[in-house]
Amino acid sequence: MAQDIRIAIIGHGFMGHEHEKMLSDFPGIKLVGISDRDPKQLEDVKEGLKRYSSNEELFADPEVDVVIIAANNNQHRDLVVQAANAKKDIICEKPVAMSLKELDEMEEAVKKNGVKFTVHQQRRFDPDFRTAKAVYDSGTLGDVYSIKNQLYGFNGNMHDWHVFVEEGGGMLYDWGVHLLDQVCFMFPGAKLKSVYADIRNVINKEVDDYFNIMLRFDNNVTANIELGTYYLADKVQDKWFERHWFVAGNKGTAYVDGFFPEGKIVRTTHLLTNVGGKRTMTAAGPTRSFGPAPDGTIVTEPLPQVNTEHKNYFEHYIKAYHGEEEFYVKIPEVRRVLRLMDAVRESGRTGKSIDFE
Amino acid sequence: MAQDIRIAIIGHGFMGHEHEKMLSDFPGIKLVGISDRDPKQLEDVKEGLKRYSSNEELFADPEVDVVIIAANNNQHRDLVVQAANAKKDIICEKPVAMSLKELDEMEEAVKKNGVKFTVHQQRRFDPDFRTAKAVYDSGTLGDVYSIKNQLYGFNGNMHDWHVFVEEGGGMLYDWGVHLLDQVCFMFPGAKLKSVYADIRNVINKEVDDYFNIMLRFDNNVTANIELGTYYLADKVQDKWFERHWFVAGNKGTAYVDGFFPEGKIVRTTHLLTNVGGKRTMTAAGPTRSFGPAPDGTIVTEPLPQVNTEHKNYFEHYIKAYHGEEEFYVKIPEVRRVLRLMDAVRESGRTGKSIDFE
Repeated sequence: MAQDIRIAIIGHGFMGHEHEKMLSDFPGIKLVGISDRDPKQLEDVKEGLKRYSSNEELFADPEVDVVIIAANNNQHRDLVVQAANAKKDIICEKPVAMSLKELDEMEEAVKKNGVKFTVHQQRRFDPDFRTAKAVYDSGTLGDVYSIKNQLYGFNGNMHDWHVFVEEGGGMLYDWGVHLLDQVCFMFPGAKLKSVYADIRNVINKEVDDYFNIMLRFDNNVTANIELGTYYLADKVQDKWFERHWFVAGNKGTAYVDGFFPEGKIVRTTHLLTNVGGKRTMTAAGPTRSFGPAPDGTIVTEPLPQVNTEHKNYFEHYIKAYHGEEEFYVKIPEVRRVLRLMDAVRESGRTGKSIDFE
Repeated sequence: MAQDIRIAIIGHGFMGHEHEKMLSDFPGIKLVGISDRDPKQLEDVKEGLKRYSSNEELFADPEVDVVIIAANNNQHRDLVVQAANAKKDIICEKPVAMSLKELDEMEEAVKKNGVKFTVHQQRRFDPDFRTAKAVYDSGTLGDVYSIKNQLYGFNGNMHDWHVFVEEGGGMLYDWGVHLLDQVCFMFPGAKLKSVYADIRNVINKEVDDYFNIMLRFDNNVTANIELGTYYLADKVQDKWFERHWFVAGNKGTAYVDGFFPEGKIVRTTHLLTNVGGKRTMTAAGPTRSFGPAPDGTIVTEPLPQVNTEHKNYFEHYIKAYHGEEEFYVKIPEVRRVLRLMDAVRESGRTGKSIDFE
């Protein structure tokens, strides 16, 4: 049995608390302690964990093998370099960096020091995503041509450091990095040919809080990724609507709604027949492309069941750490998504599509 | 009281029948007769109407003031030119032409002969569109940034001549011309800066049956127009889903569903407050951008009532014919939409956005 991996967390904000909760009692991992530049943020650190008064103290702790970097986005670059130079292995929160240049500098430090480096893209294990992916992978929809990945909220404004550009705020960094990563992860090996994006500050002064992105892949799928923080309908549970996937193929479609997904695979039992006449009459009147479906025409099947959760990220991490598999989230993958976010911003600014790969 | 406008119809297919039904008893209009190149299509022409055995016979009839051209799309150019040369005024079905060159030739013949020329874009009076337009025009949503215009069907294949490219088939010509016209009509004076489109033959061999189009206007609105003939969900009435508008602004959103529209204006009573802390705690836990809305946060208002129908097209036509107003559908408008459909095809083929205006 391998030794427990000894982990410390930098940053006790929202994600720092999430990691503390996840890893306090995780087989194969020993959570050692937590640092934060604001002493107040350390007041509720769990009993039995170290409270580092500085990152230097954390980096100097020989009891720490791995550092999880959960500080604001604009601190990731420096903290990764410092951790690498302290010979600590690294799990960095997403987005890994605020520019490709920052990521270059991180990778250089990581290589020089021979430490392990991966990124916490835990939403690769989200059940809604994995359900949509299972539908796609199964081939049950035939040739898939369109995939939608949508997230809508009611709050409008963001909170805390997320409202400041300088600290790496905005929804493209916060959620876009997940939604883009999910779609890219769904199509291994596919080249992303072009990107077209609308990105807005609807309610927030500094940072983006809405985007609508079209991605054309060379596997014949166009993905549409949309997020709004003030985008409302009282449709789900008579209140609002939040998380949606839609997968369309030539043998049916699937919708997957909610983080704990509900939905169906939907098909037509018999298609309109191609006829060469001038006007095809049916019992219901002239044939038309649109209109209510006759009873029995639309049939549904249940969605595939998936069984994934965020803790799977760390289960895989432990195996990879001990050399039993590759890291689930690879740096070339996060580099590609970082470059893609740059393309999204450029398309949004110029109003033109960007040739990507 | 002005004399009745005496109208004849060319083509007794689906739309020819619709015009016959609409105009058989229409104040201000006298329906004179109908022609079709296939004698069988004339068998069910109503009693009292002339059945022209050829278009030449129709064009030669001094009792006809106006010709409605409802033949297949690939016949529009020749029929408009012939009607103009016969000194008949013209209402042409949409799409007016299959190329800008065809429209140039039509306009030349129309000008030379001094006849009136307009196009039957009756869906400018669709109640769902006018409801979305009324919401937009009212300003109740604040600064609108996104509008969606969507139509989904279950049939997959098309029917009759619509399956042949040569006859002007495909959904961009059939429905796209309406959906694009509606959005352009919604923003008078706005320049359309760029177009990005995905357009597919999902089930049909020859013709397009799916498209997803992004239009960036200089009034700050991005419009998303999507149509699928095999795009399914059992969401509405537990069966499928068809017609949708969505209008999003910084003071609320509106959804408009169905051809006889139902929907709501939706707002948030209080937005998340921007705070500069590291982690804002609320009674419900840490503040987050997404998640279920607390009770009372989401409120709705009814949609504005509109009172439009397709017969309004001909009511306006009569007034314009007698010089009381301009034609509701102007040739520069249909020319712009024709050019836009070309841009959609080019973007779909190249995968790149098209700079439009």
